[in-house]
Amino acid sequence: MSKIPLVTALNNHRSKKAISFHVPGHKGGLLFEGTPDFKKFLEIDLTELTGLDDLHAPEGVIAEAESKLMNFYGTIKSYFLVGGSTVGNLAMIHATVKRGEQVIVQRNCHKSVFNGLKLVNASPIFISPEINKELSVVTGPSIETLERAIEINSTAKVLILTYPNYYGHVFDIKNLIDLAHSKGMIVLVDEAHGAHFQIGSPFPMSAVSLGADIVVQSAHKTLPAMTMGSWMHINSNRVSVKKVKEYLEMLQSSSPSYPIMMSLDRARNYLEEFSLTDVDYTIQEIKDFTEKLNKIDGIKVLETNDLLKLIIQNDRGLTGKQLQQIFEENGVYPELSDHKNVLFILPLLKKGAKYPFGRAITAIDNGMRQIQEVKEDNKQRILVFETAPISTLQKSFIVMESCNEELVMLEDAIDKVSAETITPYPPGIPLIIRGEKITNDMIDNIKMYLQNKIKLQGGHNLSNMKIVVFK
Amino acid sequence: MSKIPLVTALNNHRSKKAISFHVPGHKGGLLFEGTPDFKKFLEIDLTELTGLDDLHAPEGVIAEAESKLMNFYGTIKSYFLVGGSTVGNLAMIHATVKRGEQVIVQRNCHKSVFNGLKLVNASPIFISPEINKELSVVTGPSIETLERAIEINSTAKVLILTYPNYYGHVFDIKNLIDLAHSKGMIVLVDEAHGAHFQIGSPFPMSAVSLGADIVVQSAHKTLPAMTMGSWMHINSNRVSVKKVKEYLEMLQSSSPSYPIMMSLDRARNYLEEFSLTDVDYTIQEIKDFTEKLNKIDGIKVLETNDLLKLIIQNDRGLTGKQLQQIFEENGVYPELSDHKNVLFILPLLKKGAKYPFGRAITAIDNGMRQIQEVKEDNKQRILVFETAPISTLQKSFIVMESCNEELVMLEDAIDKVSAETITPYPPGIPLIIRGEKITNDMIDNIKMYLQNKIKLQGGHNLSNMKIVVFK
Repeated sequence: MSKIPLVTALNNHRSKKAISFHVPGHKGGLLFEGTPDFKKFLEIDLTELTGLDDLHAPEGVIAEAESKLMNFYGTIKSYFLVGGSTVGNLAMIHATVKRGEQVIVQRNCHKSVFNGLKLVNASPIFISPEINKELSVVTGPSIETLERAIEINSTAKVLILTYPNYYGHVFDIKNLIDLAHSKGMIVLVDEAHGAHFQIGSPFPMSAVSLGADIVVQSAHKTLPAMTMGSWMHINSNRVSVKKVKEYLEMLQSSSPSYPIMMSLDRARNYLEEFSLTDVDYTIQEIKDFTEKLNKIDGIKVLETNDLLKLIIQNDRGLTGKQLQQIFEENGVYPELSDHKNVLFILPLLKKGAKYPFGRAITAIDNGMRQIQEVKEDNKQRILVFETAPISTLQKSFIVMESCNEELVMLEDAIDKVSAETITPYPPGIPLIIRGEKITNDMIDNIKMYLQNKIKLQGGHNLSNMKIVVFK
Repeated sequence: MSKIPLVTALNNHRSKKAISFHVPGHKGGLLFEGTPDFKKFLEIDLTELTGLDDLHAPEGVIAEAESKLMNFYGTIKSYFLVGGSTVGNLAMIHATVKRGEQVIVQRNCHKSVFNGLKLVNASPIFISPEINKELSVVTGPSIETLERAIEINSTAKVLILTYPNYYGHVFDIKNLIDLAHSKGMIVLVDEAHGAHFQIGSPFPMSAVSLGADIVVQSAHKTLPAMTMGSWMHINSNRVSVKKVKEYLEMLQSSSPSYPIMMSLDRARNYLEEFSLTDVDYTIQEIKDFTEKLNKIDGIKVLETNDLLKLIIQNDRGLTGKQLQQIFEENGVYPELSDHKNVLFILPLLKKGAKYPFGRAITAIDNGMRQIQEVKEDNKQRILVFETAPISTLQKSFIVMESCNEELVMLEDAIDKVSAETITPYPPGIPLIIRGEKITNDMIDNIKMYLQNKIKLQGGHNLSNMKIVVFK
């Protein structure tokens, strides 16, 4: 068996110089205009030809590649996903949550988790994560919050967690998994940002090793896989492999992309061959980079639980957004920024691999020198308000679909049911979720965020101090 | 405005030699092992960077690219899809069919249409297409069948059709669309195989021009787009653009693939610039190829309604599958084969573009010369049995999920509800659909198909003359 079965099969096919009378219509790149450099790549954008297996009924090279993935992560079954972690999250919810059922779900989950709950018309019980106010860092829900949520909602059979967060922070997820299991619940984890945790130290442990029942990972985020390339691990007998498979088949393209699948095979192999020497090399390269960053006037680097995530702040009173803009003007592109922070996602380097860290340092240093004097009153406070530890929706998703909405002044919205989800960044935890009852506290907090010009996602009418509610 | 806005934006970004501290983890191909040829391509596998817009909330280059698509097809709104036509079909059903509602649907629809109906727990009324028995060709449902189905099921608000079929056959869809509209119904069309029909003559007219309300097309099937690249057209005010958009956001990756989106922008441009001279050139090239194919001893070519689709048969008593194998051994890869036919999907060539037709002719000629004498008793009959013109399910999708199943002998299955879908190829119309009542005729037909060794999809226990039914 080849060590990268799908890659080998695609290369074999390419070497045949086969004549295509099949899809895709670019015919091995022959009809693709503009960029001759793309031709080689497009030659492997193939379809379910003889020898190339079928993602939805794998018996050949895709079965082998998925089996290698399964063995590497030590799971019961692992699947390649071509629709990103989005499709993994949707499928795991469809396969485990029956319509109308209660589910306990971490309040700051990805929108695909919300969407999954909506599509199956689940009845979510949101549990808020803890916040380290000093560091403005969101961790996970406390064991007490989960205990209380289970106590109140004894029919919930599924717990959905997000681990780590976007910024690379983890929490004691094992405790939560064990508690849920002791109550007969199954645990689904959106581990989009943790595909590389399988390497082991210095990275945190993966929810796969910590016993979660289904774990979805975005291979494309931290491993050398193409965008939309993710994978899903089934890790226990508490869930039905057959059902999960059924929903993956339903929700994913019947013409899955071979380049994306090929890149997943490569990414698994990259990770599997990632040696201790490579780990040391990556640690050293990132340490050097971090030190040099910290020496740049005005820059402060916060390390996270994940070696590959750096949070960059500045002491010039710039927002994260402004800092990002300066970086980009100098050719350095971060992952994202918020009110205060810029996030860098760093590469997982094998020994000897060169990354343009030096060029980045020069560019950032140049950028920081160009900054105009920032007035003190531009320096903005960081506000992080806690949300209710446990909360439910006042109306089911289906009912909300056919409810009339109206736009009201913020002060008139108290005790009404919100038709909007409003999320401040940071901390990225929804302040109000569509379907929740609006409280006095929520309105006060919104006003504080607005006064402090903190970025709010949703709430398009807040500039007029209005909000959409259900009639 | 650039004529290929998204392509231009990606090239601009690439020319900046920007340093990536963002996803994807292959970092512009730097960490992608094995194939240096892929590097150039992977440089544009980017994320929602400044200047690259956002598929789910487009305001820049993606909005421009989609707007060009909309203008070219003359629609109200057109969307790029990165999850194939599968996601388009799922979204259009979610956006227009309420849970439990009746829908009239062509019996030989793609599995993604079935899956969409299942996900919303619709109540489908299946209408069978007509069959030209002489040519073993499936066309579309007759106007009489649709009239009758509407008469019986007056609450159905949605009609779902497939046009053209896989083999490039069309039917008078305009009549059906007009009838449905006159009854206040909306019409959804899975036009996966007809993205190129917008060229006009000699191609059939597209369902977009013929007034369907939503049309989904696989750009990747016949245009130079990458696999999973599709698009959706909203063509009337009978449907809510807002709702369709909402479901596309829910069902598609939150990290959509830029290479796939870029290829859609290129494919639209390719089509838009496809001139009458190009059309003439493609016609002539395909005519020459067809003539040469027909001259090969033992080969017979059937043309279809779609210039890009050729059906190849043989007079040596080989099945389509066997013929495909001979082609492939000689380096020629068809799209598919069935009991009798091999299907070629041909390229849409701009004037002067070279395609290896000559090499294909030599290869096929060689292959045919190698064929051993085929015994007469190997020559198999083509059987095409009609299915009931109109049929419904005995149990809803949700009820079926929690029903027990049992395996029974074929003869004991009569009047029971099938738990399997069984589809013979050809004609590719399900003989039995999961949830339908099993009739005497169905069992007789299954037996005839089995005796004649016709490929059946589903029915894994038929080798033991058994079938799975609901208890």
